[in-house]
Amino acid sequence: MAKVASDPTPLTGGNSGGGSGRRPLPDSGHVNGGDGAYSYTRNSYFQKFAVNVAKERIEGAIRMKLDVEKLSSRSNIMCIADLGCAVGPNTFNSMQDILHFMQQKYSVQCPKSDKTLKFLVFFNDQPSNDFNTLFTSLPREAPYLAAGVPGSFHGRLFPESSIHLAHCSYALHWLSGVPEELRDENSSAWNKGRIHYTNAPDEVVRAYAARFAKDMEDFLCARAEEIVEGGMMMIIMPGIPNGMSYDEVAASVMYEFMASSLMDMADEGLISEDEVDSFNLPIYTPSPEEMAVAVEKNGQFSMEILELTNSAALVDGRVDIKAWVSHVRAANEGMFTKNFAGDIIDEMFDRVTEKLFMFSKRLNSLYKDRTQLLVVLIRK
Amino acid sequence: MAKVASDPTPLTGGNSGGGSGRRPLPDSGHVNGGDGAYSYTRNSYFQKFAVNVAKERIEGAIRMKLDVEKLSSRSNIMCIADLGCAVGPNTFNSMQDILHFMQQKYSVQCPKSDKTLKFLVFFNDQPSNDFNTLFTSLPREAPYLAAGVPGSFHGRLFPESSIHLAHCSYALHWLSGVPEELRDENSSAWNKGRIHYTNAPDEVVRAYAARFAKDMEDFLCARAEEIVEGGMMMIIMPGIPNGMSYDEVAASVMYEFMASSLMDMADEGLISEDEVDSFNLPIYTPSPEEMAVAVEKNGQFSMEILELTNSAALVDGRVDIKAWVSHVRAANEGMFTKNFAGDIIDEMFDRVTEKLFMFSKRLNSLYKDRTQLLVVLIRK
Repeated sequence: MAKVASDPTPLTGGNSGGGSGRRPLPDSGHVNGGDGAYSYTRNSYFQKFAVNVAKERIEGAIRMKLDVEKLSSRSNIMCIADLGCAVGPNTFNSMQDILHFMQQKYSVQCPKSDKTLKFLVFFNDQPSNDFNTLFTSLPREAPYLAAGVPGSFHGRLFPESSIHLAHCSYALHWLSGVPEELRDENSSAWNKGRIHYTNAPDEVVRAYAARFAKDMEDFLCARAEEIVEGGMMMIIMPGIPNGMSYDEVAASVMYEFMASSLMDMADEGLISEDEVDSFNLPIYTPSPEEMAVAVEKNGQFSMEILELTNSAALVDGRVDIKAWVSHVRAANEGMFTKNFAGDIIDEMFDRVTEKLFMFSKRLNSLYKDRTQLLVVLIRK
Repeated sequence: MAKVASDPTPLTGGNSGGGSGRRPLPDSGHVNGGDGAYSYTRNSYFQKFAVNVAKERIEGAIRMKLDVEKLSSRSNIMCIADLGCAVGPNTFNSMQDILHFMQQKYSVQCPKSDKTLKFLVFFNDQPSNDFNTLFTSLPREAPYLAAGVPGSFHGRLFPESSIHLAHCSYALHWLSGVPEELRDENSSAWNKGRIHYTNAPDEVVRAYAARFAKDMEDFLCARAEEIVEGGMMMIIMPGIPNGMSYDEVAASVMYEFMASSLMDMADEGLISEDEVDSFNLPIYTPSPEEMAVAVEKNGQFSMEILELTNSAALVDGRVDIKAWVSHVRAANEGMFTKNFAGDIIDEMFDRVTEKLFMFSKRLNSLYKDRTQLLVVLIRK
């Protein structure tokens, strides 16, 4: 049974694992490449579960909202982009599903056509992403031509009006950078003793929210230029109900314990307090309302679906802490390695795991339900 | 002063180095990635010199033969492909030159146009190529959108009629594989005691030539589908005058000494003779005539330029043996590492260097002149 979680909302039950987003800041790390114990390749089934839950909705969106006949009227080549693709295998599965749904839609729309749709899939991620692993693990008989596009999706990646469908799964919660004021001692948003906006003053939360709003502006502006009229964009990412404070979400415990573990280590002299104060995770979990505002402001897309997946039925077990930590580590370790030595990171994750076990009752009492955001847009 | 060489025709004079091709068999190695002492990145200025010599001819070909106005009539986005791009920096320079020439041509053809050409550059190489190094070294302010396309250029890489200009520099001499019969004891083309067709019986030479002809057939067939009508393809690669035996070319000494060094090591028990017998380099240097036959047979391209660069003025010095060996190693080591341990390869290159110094008089007496082939084609 598929499991669902948000970023880094813990997964629950048997062999499932929780996890987090998977995409880096510009030049500031990346999901773990290769295929080792903490590699993203081996620790991304959380994202897979998340995508599976969204799969039915995606199929529905393509069936109901995407005019494949019109899109293919000029050329039978459909260009699909996966934005923040990381290293697989999820991106391959998503892409295969999407082009299957598009083909299905085409045969429903044009049952007598002898034209065959062909697909060119652009796998996008930061230049620091492990494209070597991505390319060598491409499915051998993939029914599409594949290209990798290195670059930040907060800027332009593709030619104008060249993309028919863009997909962005567990990537858009990565901010383009850490808000400057978090590191500024003289700012009211100085984020002393924390590494995220969990349990932080409003100023810090607002600094994060403002950065996300700006990032969405850049993201939507670039996509509006690249996606053809009538083309679709689907975004799957961690989300939080309107009006809820992030501290109420189970995922927040991970950030809280990361920060407190690092601060404990600073107290013990293993690292300096400055190192903790100057480090912040560029991760943000928006509400549907925030997404609606961003799309409205951009004005170039119609909102077809905006919803939080209610995954209550799926998360009624207890959090599998070890699996959760592994998954968060696969997605986020790259952020830490820029600032902390390897043994410090090991120590931090050990301490976080210990704290999670110690406070598992609290963890399990926090909000875990509707924490995955699905947004489907059509380029006007 | 620019230096020229063929594959692996030695460069001559001061700080120049000779080198060899740069592209792997499918899944059978690649140019050396990263930026270490034997990396391709640090040992590819030979290829740069080669390209510089071709640059003027390329500029001329675009100016005289490419109808950029027509190509851009449907869209202002020009798609350029570098086939067998390796890891840079040469590919970036070539791409930048080409799009500069195309822009120049456009402004000559359409002096009053307010349309700006935009460029999408596809960097292609085998999936085993070090795309990570390629992507992280992309010029920051590159005036084009960049994509990487992993795959063999002996098959389809791009959508139909999607490429306006394809460029393939020092890559097409890499065969898609080693002819089977070279490893077959019962074949008259069994290549015992050699690793190339240098000094080999006619049957071996013919097996290589046949493989090259088939590869060209596949290559041209795929490109004919991908390149738009009126689009251009330029090929720069090692070449040999019509009717000349490869043994007469200076480059052949490298292959001869590689083989004899390995056989010496087999005699000394460092490796087995079987290992040498079963190993062959999938590299072929064609004549203009062979290229003409391939293009004629394909029938979809008109031949605009077919010439061997006469680089006599440039190669009148003595071969810089150390630089040459380094360059050949950067381009070819990947082939050896699949079959031989690292210390064996070190030992082989040491012995090759020694032999080259010992027989430098012979080396310098061999043919080094017109050994770079330039082919410019227009898709009919």
